[in-house]
Amino acid sequence: MKNIKIVVIGGGSSYTPELLDGVIRHWEAGDFFAGEVVLVDVPEGRERTEVIAEFSRRMMKKRGMPSTVRVSFNRKEALDGATFVISQVRVGGMKARRTDEHLPIKYGVIGQETTGPGGFANALRTIPVALEIAADVKEKCPDAWLLNFSNPSGLVTEALIKHTDVKTFGLCNVPISIKMAIAQALRVEPARIRLDVMGLNHLSFVTHVYRDGEDIRDLLFSRAFVGHLTKAAKLKPEMDRFLMRLKAIPSPYLQYYWLRRRTVSEEERALGNEGTRADEVMKIEEELFAQYRKPDVDELPEALKKRGGAWYSTVALDCISAMVRNVPHFEALNVRNNGAIVDLPSDCVVEITSVVDGKGPTPLQLGSLPLEVRGLVQQVKAYEELTVEAAVRGDVEAAFFALLNHPLVGDAEVAFDLLKEILESNREFLPQFQGKKL
Amino acid sequence: MKNIKIVVIGGGSSYTPELLDGVIRHWEAGDFFAGEVVLVDVPEGRERTEVIAEFSRRMMKKRGMPSTVRVSFNRKEALDGATFVISQVRVGGMKARRTDEHLPIKYGVIGQETTGPGGFANALRTIPVALEIAADVKEKCPDAWLLNFSNPSGLVTEALIKHTDVKTFGLCNVPISIKMAIAQALRVEPARIRLDVMGLNHLSFVTHVYRDGEDIRDLLFSRAFVGHLTKAAKLKPEMDRFLMRLKAIPSPYLQYYWLRRRTVSEEERALGNEGTRADEVMKIEEELFAQYRKPDVDELPEALKKRGGAWYSTVALDCISAMVRNVPHFEALNVRNNGAIVDLPSDCVVEITSVVDGKGPTPLQLGSLPLEVRGLVQQVKAYEELTVEAAVRGDVEAAFFALLNHPLVGDAEVAFDLLKEILESNREFLPQFQGKKL
Amino acid sequence: MKNIKIVVIGGGSSYTPELLDGVIRHWEAGDFFAGEVVLVDVPEGRERTEVIAEFSRRMMKKRGMPSTVRVSFNRKEALDGATFVISQVRVGGMKARRTDEHLPIKYGVIGQETTGPGGFANALRTIPVALEIAADVKEKCPDAWLLNFSNPSGLVTEALIKHTDVKTFGLCNVPISIKMAIAQALRVEPARIRLDVMGLNHLSFVTHVYRDGEDIRDLLFSRAFVGHLTKAAKLKPEMDRFLMRLKAIPSPYLQYYWLRRRTVSEEERALGNEGTRADEVMKIEEELFAQYRKPDVDELPEALKKRGGAWYSTVALDCISAMVRNVPHFEALNVRNNGAIVDLPSDCVVEITSVVDGKGPTPLQLGSLPLEVRGLVQQVKAYEELTVEAAVRGDVEAAFFALLNHPLVGDAEVAFDLLKEILESNREFLPQFQGKKL
Amino acid sequence: MKNIKIVVIGGGSSYTPELLDGVIRHWEAGDFFAGEVVLVDVPEGRERTEVIAEFSRRMMKKRGMPSTVRVSFNRKEALDGATFVISQVRVGGMKARRTDEHLPIKYGVIGQETTGPGGFANALRTIPVALEIAADVKEKCPDAWLLNFSNPSGLVTEALIKHTDVKTFGLCNVPISIKMAIAQALRVEPARIRLDVMGLNHLSFVTHVYRDGEDIRDLLFSRAFVGHLTKAAKLKPEMDRFLMRLKAIPSPYLQYYWLRRRTVSEEERALGNEGTRADEVMKIEEELFAQYRKPDVDELPEALKKRGGAWYSTVALDCISAMVRNVPHFEALNVRNNGAIVDLPSDCVVEITSVVDGKGPTPLQLGSLPLEVRGLVQQVKAYEELTVEAAVRGDVEAAFFALLNHPLVGDAEVAFDLLKEILESNREFLPQFQGKKL
Repeated sequence: MKNIKIVVIGGGSSYTPELLDGVIRHWEAGDFFAGEVVLVDVPEGRERTEVIAEFSRRMMKKRGMPSTVRVSFNRKEALDGATFVISQVRVGGMKARRTDEHLPIKYGVIGQETTGPGGFANALRTIPVALEIAADVKEKCPDAWLLNFSNPSGLVTEALIKHTDVKTFGLCNVPISIKMAIAQALRVEPARIRLDVMGLNHLSFVTHVYRDGEDIRDLLFSRAFVGHLTKAAKLKPEMDRFLMRLKAIPSPYLQYYWLRRRTVSEEERALGNEGTRADEVMKIEEELFAQYRKPDVDELPEALKKRGGAWYSTVALDCISAMVRNVPHFEALNVRNNGAIVDLPSDCVVEITSVVDGKGPTPLQLGSLPLEVRGLVQQVKAYEELTVEAAVRGDVEAAFFALLNHPLVGDAEVAFDLLKEILESNREFLPQFQGKKL
Repeated sequence: MKNIKIVVIGGGSSYTPELLDGVIRHWEAGDFFAGEVVLVDVPEGRERTEVIAEFSRRMMKKRGMPSTVRVSFNRKEALDGATFVISQVRVGGMKARRTDEHLPIKYGVIGQETTGPGGFANALRTIPVALEIAADVKEKCPDAWLLNFSNPSGLVTEALIKHTDVKTFGLCNVPISIKMAIAQALRVEPARIRLDVMGLNHLSFVTHVYRDGEDIRDLLFSRAFVGHLTKAAKLKPEMDRFLMRLKAIPSPYLQYYWLRRRTVSEEERALGNEGTRADEVMKIEEELFAQYRKPDVDELPEALKKRGGAWYSTVALDCISAMVRNVPHFEALNVRNNGAIVDLPSDCVVEITSVVDGKGPTPLQLGSLPLEVRGLVQQVKAYEELTVEAAVRGDVEAAFFALLNHPLVGDAEVAFDLLKEILESNREFLPQFQGKKL
Repeated sequence: MKNIKIVVIGGGSSYTPELLDGVIRHWEAGDFFAGEVVLVDVPEGRERTEVIAEFSRRMMKKRGMPSTVRVSFNRKEALDGATFVISQVRVGGMKARRTDEHLPIKYGVIGQETTGPGGFANALRTIPVALEIAADVKEKCPDAWLLNFSNPSGLVTEALIKHTDVKTFGLCNVPISIKMAIAQALRVEPARIRLDVMGLNHLSFVTHVYRDGEDIRDLLFSRAFVGHLTKAAKLKPEMDRFLMRLKAIPSPYLQYYWLRRRTVSEEERALGNEGTRADEVMKIEEELFAQYRKPDVDELPEALKKRGGAWYSTVALDCISAMVRNVPHFEALNVRNNGAIVDLPSDCVVEITSVVDGKGPTPLQLGSLPLEVRGLVQQVKAYEELTVEAAVRGDVEAAFFALLNHPLVGDAEVAFDLLKEILESNREFLPQFQGKKL
Repeated sequence: MKNIKIVVIGGGSSYTPELLDGVIRHWEAGDFFAGEVVLVDVPEGRERTEVIAEFSRRMMKKRGMPSTVRVSFNRKEALDGATFVISQVRVGGMKARRTDEHLPIKYGVIGQETTGPGGFANALRTIPVALEIAADVKEKCPDAWLLNFSNPSGLVTEALIKHTDVKTFGLCNVPISIKMAIAQALRVEPARIRLDVMGLNHLSFVTHVYRDGEDIRDLLFSRAFVGHLTKAAKLKPEMDRFLMRLKAIPSPYLQYYWLRRRTVSEEERALGNEGTRADEVMKIEEELFAQYRKPDVDELPEALKKRGGAWYSTVALDCISAMVRNVPHFEALNVRNNGAIVDLPSDCVVEITSVVDGKGPTPLQLGSLPLEVRGLVQQVKAYEELTVEAAVRGDVEAAFFALLNHPLVGDAEVAFDLLKEILESNREFLPQFQGKKL
């Protein structure tokens, strides 16, 4: 069993124990041994990170895994000799996320952490930090793989791939969640299901489902079954129609686009009541950390399931396992397009089923997007390219055009007002826009 | 001077006299002689068509042109032996256009004859008729060119090019209007100005302006000049920002997208007051026909300038002249893409600067769209492809997805309600949807 | 262990025992159980086929595998209920191959079974038969996979993929042979080596070699190692220079192109002495069948190694195993390009590393060919497209232009004379050219 | 009439008087006035250049054109203030051309000034000089157009377009010669004929011929006419077959490829008798200069027609006229592909019908090459890309692979020997290869 060193940037996240649990499971299964795990965070996160580390050590002890788990607030030091680096930072923390979600609703636009103006603001904050992390990786552990789960994952990965030469790809838990849901709906082992996934992060489409290698579209998109499928994929019932036409299963995020008016209404209503998802997650996190802190708790708490991001750790560790063992494994990942989706530029990042082995991920050649979603995906990709340009260069005009290009904005006045407020409320996290004028 | 026969389908339009005036001017200039002109219309348009024909004969007589102008309500008979066929039909007449404009506003969506749900409804009505016209042309005058100005011109031309093999291209008066405006702003003869235009009908972009062959972007997009340019191009003042970034001049229709919220407000306000453009045009037409009817009027009435469609007849007749004389001439036309715009499918119709000579139009190779508008154009093209599919096959699901794909709709509930009402209110003009269920 | 039925078309080949040996080994390894194996051949091959079947039964008996091996001279009957069909026909037999090899040498052109005019003649004979086999598969076992190893494998597969909708791909033993040779040169287990292969059948290139997932180009193409590599890949010593520049390993068939003059000389010399490869193979086959016939021989004879086609059965059965077990497996196969190699048409067949699982093979997205070989591959692909057209439609002109396009011919007079002689000497096998005139 | 300054680099060529005659004719026609013409040459060409200048002054005087014609051996000085620069240098002079033609024949390869190893050697010599000229143009007259007729025109233009940002395009007289020949065969005015031309320099194809705008392929490729066409296009009679299949007219240089064996035999025979074209041209030039020197000769001598390069000056000056007058004009030119021919890289140079006006040339979008020639053109383009790389960087390996890629070489041993001898015999003209080892 190979001995590897994993560094988790943003290690103080409430997700981390799930990741560590996976690390233990892969050791139990004989896949690889993570002899050293370092949790890196910013100094303000020290207390949380130490709680997580201590809890992780208890888990490991209980299951007999002889690894070292340590914390570090010096990223370069921590990265030295790393084999895999997992980046899951949240620049600005939950507070900034809350603003991402709340602010757009004022303008009648969906407020969401990764999609729309919220995801845009998140990208502006996160991309510069991601590039710094990449520079440290290149310096301290140039052969390491950087697995990016910092949101918005597609945009951050595009920045990394276009502006650094670090070995990297982006993760998402949406495709695996759909896979798990389909398996459950079909009552088969998930391992018997394989998907062809193509599109962009949080705007991807399952274009084929194979059960034991057999394409089962006739079953899935039959009148009798489609309802189960829609439900399993966490889609609203009216999405049946879309599935029947597309013969494809969209990410639930598609609903932000196609059911936008209703979503805005719901969000407006929620804002005056229970708040947004950030408010909810903050409560869950409080509860989780309360559990992690208990000296006798040495198993993953139930509450973690409510945290979201289910299966993300599965994706990350299955990929690491495939790379360490050099055994081919399918996963929908964010990688350089390179012609795999013919409707999108070659040099952009797409989310696509890739085969991962010791070489890393290679995208499968899957052809064209369905006409019914091609235009939307192309439009969002234009938004993404402009956003990356804006974030990397601190280009205010690119930022304005990025927002204007986003299908959920698509109006110059709204884009202008939103951008102004985003730049202002995120000022401390946007050094690249210092002194730039809108 | 070559003798040609021109057939105008939709000859009873109030535009027609401008076309006939152009025919006379080209004869006066020695370009070609239209010895026979037939105005074809539907039987209900008989009175209007005869008024137009009679007025045209008076114009010709006054200027000494020895042509025959006749009316016909038998399309096939009229087409026999035609050299050029100009199609400018308006299926459902002004009343249907009025519905196209009014109906979407209820849903908070822009109501417009060619853009958005109005243009969509118009396409559903017009495309089947356009295909019938093409079939008649193939039968009676297979070597004739069919110049399409039936709106929505891009969509109708795409249907003709994908579903018939008639020799055809689509016209638009937007690019020439921008050219005229630039010439005026620069105080030079229009002939000294040439444009590179690319995009789609009513969503095209002037990416280069040449004065005497010299690219004058530095002048045009200077702080000092851009305001004149914006004004000349009939754009709202806030579009200055867009022009400065794009270094390109958009069609004014872009404002329906980028200034959509304001436009909807203005339309909502107008609906309760002076009405929409259709209401206005109906008044202008009344006035125009009153003039045409006067037996002593033998010159184009002043009021025609208010009619809109300025320069359309110039485009049509300059193309005919270039084809008849076999002399190369630049014009932005709707033609098969064929790779000329690399961001769009090869088999779709684009609006692009083409060189026209005896062979007809050939698109110039102009490369890529600016990133800032690429996604929008791709999204609208997806809408157009779905609309053509819906119109040709009477496919309700394609129709639904077309509307859903339109950036001004982009919401499934709105698309559904709009489509239902469009199918209902246009029922008599949509035989292809007979008995189909949404 | 799944129970499958394998039908081998051309079962009387001297190769077949190797295939059957592999079938036994996969059963021994617990991968799958081929409960029924049918060897199909033409009536003239009855004696040979029965010898093979009898010998195979002895092998199975010895190793305790309870399968049924039977012979059939009624293809449709045999195909009924098949799970996998392996096609390895040789239309015209060894005699026709001998002509393929001898005839071109007269014209100073390389004589070879798959490359040049010999492969061309072979394609003209084999493609019509391959299409008939595909039709039978569609009728009798439409869900079966057809693995094509009938030579020329790339051309036959292109005909199958363009002109039928059978589930199929083409096999080649060149890439696996290179892999085995590299493993040997590096003294590592073959399983630790993975290749990126791209190009055409018998004109493919190993563009990357991974050892345990690590790209080892710096080692392979070092001055110290390249000689070993060249030797291992069965390339002549002067190919060192090519490898150093390309940083890629070509199929040995590339030498027919790049060392053509010397090869022609060698062939001319051999023709007057020991004869061509066909002559040699005929002798080996005699020897092999002598062995197979001996009632006490129940193991693969040593002489089989001289037969050529090493590892072909490994490729075929590893693919079948991956499909049956639905476990991902890398193999360089002949599949529809679909954009995987951007320099070649989307609808053509390429040889490319694919990942095979229950769904069948999916090509990896590998990008562009090295500039140094791009043009040659494109030229050969044009030859292949024309050859397929000629073979399917019996189009004499397409046949002439195919030969003219082949880089080893490239001369109209030679192409003309060669074609004339090929059509004549293969007349009985070319019904599609009956009555056509050159 | 605009006053322009034309600088001719390589002004001492025997072609130059034809160019000057064209300059006079355009002045007579009222198109433009070349008030200053400077003939630039190397010091060794002083006597020839002065003879040409003096003769040109006599022509002008006779026809009353008040221009200044002067000679200069200081390129930078001469370029100052130029409007158009025509480059027609022959690095190494006729002696080097003679070697280009003779040397390959030894190896059984066609010897020719622009095609094959001869053109390759010519490119290695000429490209560095062309880049120096471009640098001088950028410095002294950055707005001037550089018209390249230095051979091999396609290769030199590709180097200029890839490695400088000078305003440039390449000329060729083959397409216009075919046009003139077709016009003659049809007995119509050349102005009534227009061609669609696509391919590479000296490997281009007329894919459509329009007479008065009408596509006349049915007439041209009829059994009755094709013989006239073949003859007119200076093709050997057996090319009839090719034309009938292609429905396209190739450049006569295609025969070097398709009739290579016979051409080599003819060249081998000629080498021992009358010599090659260079030998012949040297004699013609002697005769021409004898005429130019006569003080009473003030008209173009008859002998000039034998010189070759017919219509080159027509192409150059018609383009200049179209640019000066800003009037659209069709010409097949060497320009950046940019997607106009979809089978070739976007950034390479192609020969394609372009429309020229004040903006310069813009290629028409003409789509795909015929399958029958696609592969050959792609292969030659790969050779060209490698040659440009070799010439610009002095890369010996690129040079070797360039020759190996050339369809007329296509053999490593031949390529090696040829390259060695080319580098040696051209040593004084190849500073970029100084000290590089094969």
